Amino acid sequence: MSAVAKGQAEQGFIRAVPNGDEVTRRICETCGFIDYENPKIVVGSVSYWQDRVLMCRRAIDPSKGKWTLPAGYLELNEAAETGARREAWEEARASLEIEQLLGIYSIAEIGQIQLIYRARLLSDNVSPGPETLELALFDWNDIPWDQLAFPSVGWALNHFRESRHLSAFAPFTAPDR
Amino acid sequence: MSAVAKGQAEQGFIRAVPNGDEVTRRICETCGFIDYENPKIVVGSVSYWQDRVLMCRRAIDPSKGKWTLPAGYLELNEAAETGARREAWEEARASLEIEQLLGIYSIAEIGQIQLIYRARLLSDNVSPGPETLELALFDWNDIPWDQLAFPSVGWALNHFRESRHLSAFAPFTAPDR
Repeated sequence: MSAVAKGQAEQGFIRAVPNGDEVTRRICETCGFIDYENPKIVVGSVSYWQDRVLMCRRAIDPSKGKWTLPAGYLELNEAAETGARREAWEEARASLEIEQLLGIYSIAEIGQIQLIYRARLLSDNVSPGPETLELALFDWNDIPWDQLAFPSVGWALNHFRESRHLSAFAPFTAPDR
Repeated sequence: MSAVAKGQAEQGFIRAVPNGDEVTRRICETCGFIDYENPKIVVGSVSYWQDRVLMCRRAIDPSKGKWTLPAGYLELNEAAETGARREAWEEARASLEIEQLLGIYSIAEIGQIQLIYRARLLSDNVSPGPETLELALFDWNDIPWDQLAFPSVGWALNHFRESRHLSAFAPFTAPDR
């Protein structure tokens, strides 16, 4: 079947407060479907091999050509750690041992909660997946700070560095902005 | 406008893999709307006043009449901590100072990620909101363990007790089950 362009689908929706609710929701005028717009969960990792961190140069928009961490949307019925490992595999053919939650970043303005884990690479044998142009294991001083795909990539890298020596710590949150 | 019964809305949906995707999605046959079913985020807290924890007896299903922690679905464009504070206010008219993330519970089988915070009550002046039959500030030995609304309530209470003396710690995860 062919996907319907977003603009078309949007035309059939109105915004109204359903009975028994207090919040305005998107409702399909045709079929009555109530689209509860929930925040989405992004899962990812700062994965390290010795003193270097794994980064991916994006082959797709948004921020095509810029550097990111392996991360993406959590799927339904997937545990958060499983999703972070899946994304590392899809984008970098990397296998991880997850250590602990590094950051929980509420990015309310775009309806996202990002869960970024600190993880140890089980091998430095990594290779780009289809959404990745190239990969690198960067020493701290070689990280391309002016070529980061998203602000949260920088937050996570800095939080990783701040907590690198700790075996257990409270997850970091998004900086005021 | 009147809400459409779920059964009715479901009838218009098929399951198919949209172009460029790898996962089967729910798609409205009438309008082509693709319903990306994402996991939902529940936010809540183990909130304490001195040595007692705040619990609520539920006035609504599921688990009506049983004891829970103040928690509920995160809204779109809401930060996780803000949602946890909102739920404590809605269910118990309680004001919180959030300390840190206590537990991140992936409950993949029901498509939920629960984010439960450890929080200090700013006052013991609490009162039931509309979804709450009664409230209690329980001493540990008085917690109604055989009357808990959900398994994660027990996990969070036990994780709270395990980490009560720690000022910073890695968030707990759901036990194997």
